[in-house]
Amino acid sequence: MKNNSITSRDVDFAKWYTDIVTAAHLAAYSSVKGCMVIEPNGYAIWEKMQRILDDKFKELGHVNVALPALIPESLLKKEGELVNGFAPEVAWVTHGGSKELEERLAFRPTSETMFCDYYKDHVSSYRDLPKLYNQWCSVIRWEKETRPFLRTREIFWQEGHTIHSTSEEAMEETQKMMDVYKWFHHEILAIPSITGMKTEKEKFAGAEYTLTNEALMYNGVALQSGTSHYFGQKFSEAYDVKFLNKENKWEYVYQTSWGTTTRMIGGLIMVHSDDKGLVLPPRIAPKQVVIIPIGNDERVFEQAEKINEELNKNNVVTYIDKSDKSPGFKFAEAEVNGIPVRIEIGPRDLDNNQITFARRDTSEKYSESLDINVVDYVKNLLETIQKDMYNKAVERRNALTYNASSLEEMEDILNNHPGFIHADWCGDPACEARIKEIKGCKSRCISDEPLINGECVCCKKQAKYHVIWGIQY
Amino acid sequence: MKNNSITSRDVDFAKWYTDIVTAAHLAAYSSVKGCMVIEPNGYAIWEKMQRILDDKFKELGHVNVALPALIPESLLKKEGELVNGFAPEVAWVTHGGSKELEERLAFRPTSETMFCDYYKDHVSSYRDLPKLYNQWCSVIRWEKETRPFLRTREIFWQEGHTIHSTSEEAMEETQKMMDVYKWFHHEILAIPSITGMKTEKEKFAGAEYTLTNEALMYNGVALQSGTSHYFGQKFSEAYDVKFLNKENKWEYVYQTSWGTTTRMIGGLIMVHSDDKGLVLPPRIAPKQVVIIPIGNDERVFEQAEKINEELNKNNVVTYIDKSDKSPGFKFAEAEVNGIPVRIEIGPRDLDNNQITFARRDTSEKYSESLDINVVDYVKNLLETIQKDMYNKAVERRNALTYNASSLEEMEDILNNHPGFIHADWCGDPACEARIKEIKGCKSRCISDEPLINGECVCCKKQAKYHVIWGIQY
Repeated sequence: MKNNSITSRDVDFAKWYTDIVTAAHLAAYSSVKGCMVIEPNGYAIWEKMQRILDDKFKELGHVNVALPALIPESLLKKEGELVNGFAPEVAWVTHGGSKELEERLAFRPTSETMFCDYYKDHVSSYRDLPKLYNQWCSVIRWEKETRPFLRTREIFWQEGHTIHSTSEEAMEETQKMMDVYKWFHHEILAIPSITGMKTEKEKFAGAEYTLTNEALMYNGVALQSGTSHYFGQKFSEAYDVKFLNKENKWEYVYQTSWGTTTRMIGGLIMVHSDDKGLVLPPRIAPKQVVIIPIGNDERVFEQAEKINEELNKNNVVTYIDKSDKSPGFKFAEAEVNGIPVRIEIGPRDLDNNQITFARRDTSEKYSESLDINVVDYVKNLLETIQKDMYNKAVERRNALTYNASSLEEMEDILNNHPGFIHADWCGDPACEARIKEIKGCKSRCISDEPLINGECVCCKKQAKYHVIWGIQY
Repeated sequence: MKNNSITSRDVDFAKWYTDIVTAAHLAAYSSVKGCMVIEPNGYAIWEKMQRILDDKFKELGHVNVALPALIPESLLKKEGELVNGFAPEVAWVTHGGSKELEERLAFRPTSETMFCDYYKDHVSSYRDLPKLYNQWCSVIRWEKETRPFLRTREIFWQEGHTIHSTSEEAMEETQKMMDVYKWFHHEILAIPSITGMKTEKEKFAGAEYTLTNEALMYNGVALQSGTSHYFGQKFSEAYDVKFLNKENKWEYVYQTSWGTTTRMIGGLIMVHSDDKGLVLPPRIAPKQVVIIPIGNDERVFEQAEKINEELNKNNVVTYIDKSDKSPGFKFAEAEVNGIPVRIEIGPRDLDNNQITFARRDTSEKYSESLDINVVDYVKNLLETIQKDMYNKAVERRNALTYNASSLEEMEDILNNHPGFIHADWCGDPACEARIKEIKGCKSRCISDEPLINGECVCCKKQAKYHVIWGIQY
């Protein structure tokens, strides 16, 4: 059943996206330009993302901290590349109460500076290293064009900032955290992202190199969701973060940072959802099963309560829709909210000793005997849905993955249906800039795969890199 | 063993407090005046507080959301009392990038205005009510004098904002959430707080009335930690939040808000800790048991691993200190960090088929046979410590609770040793102001208990209220 409040995905993808955000009560516009309200349904997804990622961070030895949201201008300016990268986007606090401040303060756009400022006073020996700190917070970047979850002025995220006694260890951390983001996308979000290194032009301001996790949306546009940066000693030199190494000599620490944001909720929408509303992979769905009793039969309520209790007791997050709405309305609501499995129980079902299961992802319905082990059945069903959603996303991604050996081919692809375009590149920024002229197509990341034909897609000179290109949010 | 980096509590209480904050790595000063860095040990306590409170909020039907951190000035100014209350403390964002904003934005000092602004567009019928929303975030209040956890410019907290279709239901919510804070203090933090209504003078700007949770520190100074406000229709009229009631007539919603902050960590320090460092009640301690192996005997490590695994498997958060420090250093470190139970295992212990337990709160040490059920033993010990710490805090609070029937008596008490002072009051703000002249003594809350002698402690006229007074952080 098509939801009337949702524009069709194939008619107007951008409108479809914002319709889903609104209809599924994920986020709402606020009176503050460019800032959104994350509503309960959206925030519950973020909380589940936080819980899963945070457990993984801690398993790998990280701890959480909280650093000030405001950064003095002089401190922010110590590392030139960083401040140049963020200067046009900083929100400045200039007054405290009725007094003008002696020095204005930036609402943090990112916290490399604050972490360095803290670390410099709390590290003195290699014995104090590594420090594996992370914080969950919001940052502000004064964006001009905004869209819920994808680009907003206030961004909810986590930022890990670690320091190490050797470059090897820091580089290993950079890769390890990128692997966490990749794992999270593939295993939890059912999104077959690709990962790799950014080109010089696309790397984070101040980083030696940036690893990126790139997901492909249904419409073939890429969404960067999760980056991990290796800084070497760039910041530690600028902020004087040093330690006595094992040879008893002062050395600057080696640093990383890595982060991911609520834009992953946007990714979930644009990879999996459909014209009926949100579709959530079971492992990230805050509510996995809804039970909808039909009619007013006491037996129906008893059966609903029994199944609800059994599932919740076995860690399947389930609820009964007890509202006074009609069953049809309840079905549509569960659909728009993306609940992976719906169980319908009516008196006729019970007369036949059965209940009905409906899958959100495929809209299939099955009647099953009440004699099944409902916990095992539902757990299997949820895992099947998870796997099927992942495979479907892989198929879509593969169908939208192309090879190109000339600018004309790239242009044709982007005019026809964008996606991930594999093409060799010589490494010259001029060629990268020329490619960007085609609908803003940028390098997503450098691939580990061998060169395709060894010739730069742009200048035809000897290629150095196999690059994956695409247009982006 | 006295910790040398910690000033004695009885010599200089304020210095003792900041020494504990530093020595236990709870928080550090930052380069941003008045803002602190919450370090891993401090943040782990906050995370445990968040988890326990959040579970309770959700059990009571609340959901989490995220509203923008920035509030347009015009929006903030709609409710006069609120803005007058906060105006001297607001941090203003005036520039986005290099551009001056058309309207300046406040970093939220509290979010009543933002919640109203959201609710007004998302509520239309009594069927949409109640809305039971909460957010975990930070707020800024431009305080002049700051102290870690107790008073900082950036404050980490939760703020619940609920709207209801009747005043009765909203008042019930106001009380219910105050009961949660009280439960949390008594049952989890082992702090025997008192609760009651604030006087008109002390209530929150814009509230009809404010309920407060007041804890008494070791030095007899009160710490307000948790307030719950009933707003009636004050904000809903100012921000036009209305609904069609069951009689199909437009009515303004009835509103509450309630919040508590990381200052509870300051309370934990000042109620329970001692000259050796932090003392944490087991139910809030992020790490409950430390195992310290003594010597290099393989049997010792095996036994340590075995106990560690068993305890963790049974939800007792335990770790082994495997660092290369001396046992004495490890003991001191576990003490300063407030780990409730220490288990020492040495080769001589094992020769005697025993291990040693040390309680952080009393410094008592016991040797116990290895034949005990270690999980049951430790769980019992942790609960005993929790209970004993609570009872000790009750004794201290009772010893510092006084009755006064004249200003002279109040002054004597406050000069001798401050605490909670019970005294009758006529209700005249002039008398309240007169009392405040005695060392800044303020009404903590109005007691439910009957009048003491029926005479105002100040003007001697007929008393209306039995009030608990005290000086505060």
